[in-house]
Amino acid sequence: MVKVLQYGVGSIGSKAVKALVSKPWIEIVGAVDSDEAKKGRDLGMVAGLDRRLDVEVYGSLAEALKHVKADIVLHTTSSWLDLVEPQILEIVENGLSVVSTCEELAYPWRRSPEAAKRIDEAARKNGVVVLGTGVNPGFVLDTMILTLTSVCISIDRIEAWRVVDASKRRLPLQKKIGSGMSVEEFRSAVQRGRMGHVGLRESLDMVADCLGWNFDYVRESLEPVVASKPIETEFFKIKPGQVIGISQSIGGFVGGFEKIKLNLQMYLNAENPRDAVKIEGVPSLEFEVKNGIPGDEATVAIIVNMIPRVLSAEPGLKTMKDLKLPFAWLKAF
Amino acid sequence: MVKVLQYGVGSIGSKAVKALVSKPWIEIVGAVDSDEAKKGRDLGMVAGLDRRLDVEVYGSLAEALKHVKADIVLHTTSSWLDLVEPQILEIVENGLSVVSTCEELAYPWRRSPEAAKRIDEAARKNGVVVLGTGVNPGFVLDTMILTLTSVCISIDRIEAWRVVDASKRRLPLQKKIGSGMSVEEFRSAVQRGRMGHVGLRESLDMVADCLGWNFDYVRESLEPVVASKPIETEFFKIKPGQVIGISQSIGGFVGGFEKIKLNLQMYLNAENPRDAVKIEGVPSLEFEVKNGIPGDEATVAIIVNMIPRVLSAEPGLKTMKDLKLPFAWLKAF
Repeated sequence: MVKVLQYGVGSIGSKAVKALVSKPWIEIVGAVDSDEAKKGRDLGMVAGLDRRLDVEVYGSLAEALKHVKADIVLHTTSSWLDLVEPQILEIVENGLSVVSTCEELAYPWRRSPEAAKRIDEAARKNGVVVLGTGVNPGFVLDTMILTLTSVCISIDRIEAWRVVDASKRRLPLQKKIGSGMSVEEFRSAVQRGRMGHVGLRESLDMVADCLGWNFDYVRESLEPVVASKPIETEFFKIKPGQVIGISQSIGGFVGGFEKIKLNLQMYLNAENPRDAVKIEGVPSLEFEVKNGIPGDEATVAIIVNMIPRVLSAEPGLKTMKDLKLPFAWLKAF
Repeated sequence: MVKVLQYGVGSIGSKAVKALVSKPWIEIVGAVDSDEAKKGRDLGMVAGLDRRLDVEVYGSLAEALKHVKADIVLHTTSSWLDLVEPQILEIVENGLSVVSTCEELAYPWRRSPEAAKRIDEAARKNGVVVLGTGVNPGFVLDTMILTLTSVCISIDRIEAWRVVDASKRRLPLQKKIGSGMSVEEFRSAVQRGRMGHVGLRESLDMVADCLGWNFDYVRESLEPVVASKPIETEFFKIKPGQVIGISQSIGGFVGGFEKIKLNLQMYLNAENPRDAVKIEGVPSLEFEVKNGIPGDEATVAIIVNMIPRVLSAEPGLKTMKDLKLPFAWLKAF
């Protein structure tokens, strides 16, 4: 039985709780959320399970650890490493391993090498493991691509696409991609650094480090997708000319040649939603997940499925490439 | 620099040599083949490189190890574990790790637990690693499926298909699948145990052990695919009614329900060649490799790519599920 502490009971954290209670090898011992409205309540009710779990939501990690003993923390609070680092360090210094959905933690070694080193050293010192993962970054545009490359003896170029129909996703996601904004509002939000998916850079860096590719430069692009006709979702009524989502990409260049390009399109009523990878090499490969991998379900699944791999790994800050082959953990642990 | 000894210089072994010489981090130090016609010759000429490598083909492992020092053996001699076990044990007892294309070695734990245990113990005792892998078994119907399941929180059923157009493959493969036989000849060859792809059972067992599925029974099927019109390849002229290949499957049943089915079709002019996986679960997933992964190229690539993973693993008999995430090893080691 693995004792899990759920840190963050927002949208993804609540879905994680539903997944955790479905696993006979997991016991949820407590939860942490900084939201005053959740503090002191029963986790089952806070997470929308419509039943009590007899598990309390505490206002802080310190408070939780006064009352419960855990083996590992499932951490779902923020995308940004600067916000998350103190939380991760506190978890680690309490002798606990952690699986986090923090996008920038999925592969911080190139973009935030000093934070990565601090977390790695703290984890080693305390004999615990830290892993950042999720559907993307963590799977579609890094782990899945890398696994496919294992049957290639040489590779000239890789391009991958994740195309998500956002019209069926939750409200925060539809908002996050700028639905209903004017193009001007979108561009100004981009300039404030508040727009777009976090994690393309992390996926690129993980693939590049595994394949030994050092780029002369990296080119990132983030453009609005604009409605050409009226669109209505559960949450938005969009007029033609308004923003319905994002078209984002990142490319790594060597000698003027784009070795790898990762494309992410998330917009309302997206056509041909899919996850696709094209490898030009020996052999060349084309691969597609029809309709794409559902984001929230997949993120929750992979963070839970990685718990046994994390608990049996050597101490340190790990990324998906450092752990044994991932698979659905349906059996006992 | 990794010193590699190539054991077996047949069709796949020769292709492996071509891949090995393309890797700056690998030095081929010698080769072994029991064929008298190859003994004492230069490996480059034997492997069809049309140039000398100044590497000798020895008649036995013992003879080779009198002359050269290796870090690891690439072993490509036979599909059958009973033939291969003495070769693997001899390699291991000489203190060498080994990556082998022996299909039955890809996951011997369920079907040949005693041989698996003997090899595992010998490997641990000698501090080396043994891995069986290849495109199939080793990747398409096990590693690739498992990797995809890592984004599923529950799984009801898995079905996968590998459909190969054999008309572009090498002669031994076209022969192996019964091309040109009558249906009677095919059935009699099946009865003698000489027909069909080796490895479906190993793939099934690896997936089942990872997912914790214990079957009440396993059902295997092997049928000829018969020409409905004349077919001509580089090697065969087929009349209608003659065999053009195999349609093979294996299914694992729990409580009368087929939890997993793996299908392999290899025949001349196969329609819609592909590798496809359908997972029914949460979430359900459908994915496909267009045209399928080319068999020989992929097998050679994965055995070479796994060398660094094998050299840094804990001693013992390993399978793909026990090693860190596989990917193309294009960088230095």
